[in-house]
Amino acid sequence: MAQRDVAIGLLGLGTVGMGVYRLLQERQERITAAVGVRPVVKKILVRDRSRARLGIDDGLLANSFEEIANDRDIQLVVEVVGGRDPAFRYAKETLSGGKHLVMANKELLATRGEELLRIARRRNVDLLFEAAVAGGIPIIRAMHESLSGDKVQRIQGIINGTTNYIITRMTDEGQAYARALKDAQLHGYAEADPTNDVDGIDAAYKLAILAGIAYRTNVRMKDVHHEGIRNLHPEDIEYSRELGYVVKLLAEASDRDGALELSVAPSLIPLKHPLAAVKDAFNAVLVRAEWAGELMFYGAGAGQRPTASAVVADIVKVLHHIQTGSVGTLPTPPSEQRAVRRLDEREARFYLRLRVADEPGVLAAVALILARENISVQCVIQKGRHADDVVDVVFLTHEALERNMRRALQKFRLLPAVREVAAMLRVRGD
Amino acid sequence: MAQRDVAIGLLGLGTVGMGVYRLLQERQERITAAVGVRPVVKKILVRDRSRARLGIDDGLLANSFEEIANDRDIQLVVEVVGGRDPAFRYAKETLSGGKHLVMANKELLATRGEELLRIARRRNVDLLFEAAVAGGIPIIRAMHESLSGDKVQRIQGIINGTTNYIITRMTDEGQAYARALKDAQLHGYAEADPTNDVDGIDAAYKLAILAGIAYRTNVRMKDVHHEGIRNLHPEDIEYSRELGYVVKLLAEASDRDGALELSVAPSLIPLKHPLAAVKDAFNAVLVRAEWAGELMFYGAGAGQRPTASAVVADIVKVLHHIQTGSVGTLPTPPSEQRAVRRLDEREARFYLRLRVADEPGVLAAVALILARENISVQCVIQKGRHADDVVDVVFLTHEALERNMRRALQKFRLLPAVREVAAMLRVRGD
Repeated sequence: MAQRDVAIGLLGLGTVGMGVYRLLQERQERITAAVGVRPVVKKILVRDRSRARLGIDDGLLANSFEEIANDRDIQLVVEVVGGRDPAFRYAKETLSGGKHLVMANKELLATRGEELLRIARRRNVDLLFEAAVAGGIPIIRAMHESLSGDKVQRIQGIINGTTNYIITRMTDEGQAYARALKDAQLHGYAEADPTNDVDGIDAAYKLAILAGIAYRTNVRMKDVHHEGIRNLHPEDIEYSRELGYVVKLLAEASDRDGALELSVAPSLIPLKHPLAAVKDAFNAVLVRAEWAGELMFYGAGAGQRPTASAVVADIVKVLHHIQTGSVGTLPTPPSEQRAVRRLDEREARFYLRLRVADEPGVLAAVALILARENISVQCVIQKGRHADDVVDVVFLTHEALERNMRRALQKFRLLPAVREVAAMLRVRGD
Repeated sequence: MAQRDVAIGLLGLGTVGMGVYRLLQERQERITAAVGVRPVVKKILVRDRSRARLGIDDGLLANSFEEIANDRDIQLVVEVVGGRDPAFRYAKETLSGGKHLVMANKELLATRGEELLRIARRRNVDLLFEAAVAGGIPIIRAMHESLSGDKVQRIQGIINGTTNYIITRMTDEGQAYARALKDAQLHGYAEADPTNDVDGIDAAYKLAILAGIAYRTNVRMKDVHHEGIRNLHPEDIEYSRELGYVVKLLAEASDRDGALELSVAPSLIPLKHPLAAVKDAFNAVLVRAEWAGELMFYGAGAGQRPTASAVVADIVKVLHHIQTGSVGTLPTPPSEQRAVRRLDEREARFYLRLRVADEPGVLAAVALILARENISVQCVIQKGRHADDVVDVVFLTHEALERNMRRALQKFRLLPAVREVAAMLRVRGD
């Protein structure tokens, strides 16, 4: 077997970049033996070249992207800088320049992935991104290849480790959101500005990528309804448990009657649901396919080592393609237009918690509003009075239209006896 | 994109064969659109050509393998006849003849896979077999490709649906083995002759295949220690639960101090272990890799539709390779020689149930034997007397050598007060 080097340009040397570099060094001989070409990191783009880096030869460091883009030896670029800019320019110029690209940048893929895939197809180069969703869990490959002859019906996932860690603290220890967030920050699971995670944006990026592959369409971020967990209260987790559910930040994509429904939101799932046991910063994705049935993929959704493992698997794939002169895992077919159902038009079961004055007739008034909106109630819990004569009333409804539920909420707010609509969550996965 | 037909020869039209044929028909247009070549089943080898088959054009049926082998149009053969003979000859001649091969035959792969892979490498054709292990769960691809840059440390799996179904009945309903087996047969989960499943042979085949890929070695069946579940008693499941464990037919491969340990045996795993919740005929594989950490893959391990889904995904892969002129997922590197640790030399924690005479001094005598064999006891349960003055004594030990435990068992049998060594199981996964 002829052996030759494949020069790699690495963009970024943060946590993930360092992991990728180290894993490639550690496994260089094994990979070379398996694939027949040797991966050699030739240049690394860093923000500040003057900073010393342990174990990295200073001669590898590049100051500008152009040093890598213009290096004709470099056939493969690995982008782990993250963010939209300048990552988009890097990605675009890499592919336009006929180099293969491996990336872990979910934000970029979710927002500009279609454009990048188009360039990759046109230039006949690889664009692989296993690490962009659920870290070390090979879910992209599973969707793209293992279900290539099947038809995906539904995807449900816990695909944000930060929020799952926070919710686990709230569930297991009854912590309030603010305290659990602080705990997550202390343990390195949440960033100083946690917006992207706790508002469900990160999970929405990942869902857009997964659904795009599963349904062969270009999912626009505005079509993914997303809610975060800032307003989640331990009481709601507690009431949910009484009702037989756990609360999770659930990402879900489904194909219902010809239209896609895409959402990320804190949701109730049954205690026995396969995702209910996914705790701490772990991720899991449950896929229902027409022929394969229910499949679940579980593992570490983030972190230096799992992410590096996924990036290097993609690198190995590109090396193999270079060695065999082929391209593309499977060709990514041009995406189809798919109808997306507006949130208002969707149906769901709802969990509703109202804080109401503890006086006769309130429950009847609330129930009447629900009935008028065609929302039938499956179960009600009313808890003993608080000090301030306000009580929690919790409703679990049967399937109802989102639009009707929104109208009911507006009407509740006009009732003097309803002090607060404290929570409105959806029930999934029965 | 130039479109052309790829002619396929299908060997076998049983449950799986019929599923593959139907799924290919159903998805033909989608697959063609994605890959650029059209899969067309040109010939189907059946045992009895005179039998009518619903929805199958009679002209497709072939009487002999040679009709397919000698058909120069046919580029891809799909083997779903099962068993070693004549499947081995079919597989060998297919590959030697330069045709690609997709198969689901675990027995053949576990016993002659090395030889077949060598022919495939030499003839530069694909040999894919995702459906051979865990049905619709894409575990082969995950091992082979997604962990290609990583290093597998341990594999633990529930990879036989029949025995998991039987054990679930014994666990949840307290059924005796014989009754649970009958139940499995009634529901189509076990065959009339259940030997392959209940003696752990089927799981051992699958483990040999998985471990061969994970450790890049040729695992010989004689190196896989396997025990079945015929002697499993509901009492042991019950005692295990008291101790905080569930019993599963666990397949495990690990790389310990430079030697492989491979086994299939009914084992105790902690209630909170990710595999503990895998019930009925479901399969799951837990992989620990050095960088990716713990990954779990869960789904239907058998059945017409999941198996067909996996076979067709492999077919799509071959089509793509034909279209792009490349071969092989990743080249399967020639396997390395790996040391395998003999059962006697392995260490484990043990669960032991003795039926002893209910008289003073017995516990002391048994404990002394264990101590002399360097086996330290973590926990003992002694249950109130039976009608016949015989009581169950259950021991849970710390890590000990298999050899020592075997010697202890021999000594127990010499003690008059020990009426029976009723169970000896291993504890895994702490």
